[in-house]
Amino acid sequence: MPIVSLHTDFGVTDTYVGQMKAAILRVAPTATLVDLTHGVPAQDVRAGAFLLWTAVEAFPAGSLHLAVVDPGVGSSRRAVAARSRRGDVLVGPDNGLLVPALEQLGGLDVAVELTEPAYWGPLRSRTFHGRDLFAPVVGHLASGVPIERMGARLERLEAPFQLSPPTQEDGCVVGEVVHVDTYGNLITNLPSALLPPRFRVRVGLTVVKGAPHPHYQAVHPGELLALVGSAGLLELSARDGSAASVLGAERGERVHIEPE
Amino acid sequence: MPIVSLHTDFGVTDTYVGQMKAAILRVAPTATLVDLTHGVPAQDVRAGAFLLWTAVEAFPAGSLHLAVVDPGVGSSRRAVAARSRRGDVLVGPDNGLLVPALEQLGGLDVAVELTEPAYWGPLRSRTFHGRDLFAPVVGHLASGVPIERMGARLERLEAPFQLSPPTQEDGCVVGEVVHVDTYGNLITNLPSALLPPRFRVRVGLTVVKGAPHPHYQAVHPGELLALVGSAGLLELSARDGSAASVLGAERGERVHIEPE
Amino acid sequence: MPIVSLHTDFGVTDTYVGQMKAAILRVAPTATLVDLTHGVPAQDVRAGAFLLWTAVEAFPAGSLHLAVVDPGVGSSRRAVAARSRRGDVLVGPDNGLLVPALEQLGGLDVAVELTEPAYWGPLRSRTFHGRDLFAPVVGHLASGVPIERMGARLERLEAPFQLSPPTQEDGCVVGEVVHVDTYGNLITNLPSALLPPRFRVRVGLTVVKGAPHPHYQAVHPGELLALVGSAGLLELSARDGSAASVLGAERGERVHIEPE
Repeated sequence: MPIVSLHTDFGVTDTYVGQMKAAILRVAPTATLVDLTHGVPAQDVRAGAFLLWTAVEAFPAGSLHLAVVDPGVGSSRRAVAARSRRGDVLVGPDNGLLVPALEQLGGLDVAVELTEPAYWGPLRSRTFHGRDLFAPVVGHLASGVPIERMGARLERLEAPFQLSPPTQEDGCVVGEVVHVDTYGNLITNLPSALLPPRFRVRVGLTVVKGAPHPHYQAVHPGELLALVGSAGLLELSARDGSAASVLGAERGERVHIEPE
Repeated sequence: MPIVSLHTDFGVTDTYVGQMKAAILRVAPTATLVDLTHGVPAQDVRAGAFLLWTAVEAFPAGSLHLAVVDPGVGSSRRAVAARSRRGDVLVGPDNGLLVPALEQLGGLDVAVELTEPAYWGPLRSRTFHGRDLFAPVVGHLASGVPIERMGARLERLEAPFQLSPPTQEDGCVVGEVVHVDTYGNLITNLPSALLPPRFRVRVGLTVVKGAPHPHYQAVHPGELLALVGSAGLLELSARDGSAASVLGAERGERVHIEPE
Repeated sequence: MPIVSLHTDFGVTDTYVGQMKAAILRVAPTATLVDLTHGVPAQDVRAGAFLLWTAVEAFPAGSLHLAVVDPGVGSSRRAVAARSRRGDVLVGPDNGLLVPALEQLGGLDVAVELTEPAYWGPLRSRTFHGRDLFAPVVGHLASGVPIERMGARLERLEAPFQLSPPTQEDGCVVGEVVHVDTYGNLITNLPSALLPPRFRVRVGLTVVKGAPHPHYQAVHPGELLALVGSAGLLELSARDGSAASVLGAERGERVHIEPE
């Protein structure tokens, strides 16, 4: 039975995540459930999409990913399941949340709208499709029901946005901070392939020496450094501290790469 | 083996939840554990009882629910297990925490006081019955030991409070906010059956149009709306925002229903 | 298959914990994973060591504990696995994090440096050994591969610190607050064996009556009390409140035990 990951903006102080898990286990009692995070900022589809994108590659091919950041719940936005070319299945609202992760997993193989009520749950709210629609569908998928049975075939998913792409400006690569993690690391949208062999990173008025900095202890405590982090993206960190605090930077802050 | 849910005020920054799970798995190594929340406000039995009540219906009949919000731990308050008419078993302190959930599950079938030390664990603290008493009992229940073996039969559980019931005032139904969720939705104690076909909701000086609002995107961003949420209760929400912030409202805020 | 506990400073708002679990389950799909906490203060090895020490005894002998608080990730600090005399295995960085827990479990039996890349994962970052090195090793250990295969034998682990030991001063035992838990309980480094039969506890200018206080409800609401908590250490608590708030005390605060 495949691993089922769960990824939402539900937080952990309500019982919403627990109710959603119950609805999966009601259908697939032996499923293995793994939380990605339930701390996506409320209703922030773009942040949710980025965080989902960071995580899916670590899972074995064929895993199931249930992602719910769903400000349009109950409206005409579609509920979907999508299988990647690698064989993973993503389930959630058709609002762009799933698209970057799907690309990361090789792109879209098959997508369906979840129109078949035989695979929905017994509770039917208008505001909690995570529990009442997505989770039961995930339970059936985990139990081996083919995705094609879940509803009408779709040619493609909605893609209302893409994760911020880097740009060029005066011969420099310009990116931005797309996530501030729990340590205060500033994670940019700059993949290692875009980085020159030797470079400086400019953030506001601060210049940080780029490569080669293989690890945090290569600099002094509190000092800033730039390295390629676990998502394959350039990150700014402060040894034993928070780069976000040191730089006073937030999501959206622009980051200039200057060859040395 | 039944699903075991866990519901506490232990938080997630200590190891208390992990220790409690270890004590269950020591007895029932293949039990499936599902966290409801560990973010019940510290010692707040009433909030814990409400949150447990919201969650249990999503679980299949026959599930086990371990709930610990227990300011009287170590005192003369009783430790209990209670089976619902639907066949679920709730385990926790006899301080009212379990009672609303038990009613939701069809009412009390059998209750026992956990007086049989053969089913307790090897560690014996005075302050952590979650680990040392409740969890081992849950492990034995999950393994199939009948509830009747756990101790002396009780006629009924203590019921020191009930979840706030709505009232009538000048021909209006008057309720209150009983929970503010992670999105800032204000969840009231008003079940849909008490709502007129068309109504307004008054909170302080603000009037919110009631039904028909089937979902959040039926109003403009930031605008307030009232709808029946996933617990079957009237909720006040702000589209893409927090009704709690917009209204400056907290738990306990009174809510008037005025027919239109 | 043994229980695998997870203990980190990764927080729960990123997907790091989920990625690490995926890397374990990729190798050992049926492993049972239990979170201790992911709320260790960032990079705080000493706090992580204390919290790990509090938790391991609750687990059955033979459990696996994966602990990652790792400011030196990617540097020359070693990655290790260590088996206790009780048969448990701890995996993590060789920075002192594992040592108190290992002592609690009977002391070191066998330790190895994780030098055998056959047991590492397919992803290879410099900053996330939790996912790329430790988790795959834990998966293989959970699947039954002997610890000796994981790499070169070590005589001993690094022990750069010990958890603060109590001292003597003017005939008094003097300890300190080593952890403030989620309730605001002040947990000291004073084991029950060091406490006289009757004593007072002095914290700053406040004197708290010591034993006998078997439980919180032995005092009035808001009142301070001292008792031996679930880790076998003296704790200062406030009934239905936070001793940390009442006393304005933090980690590191000195605590004097005065015989009565």
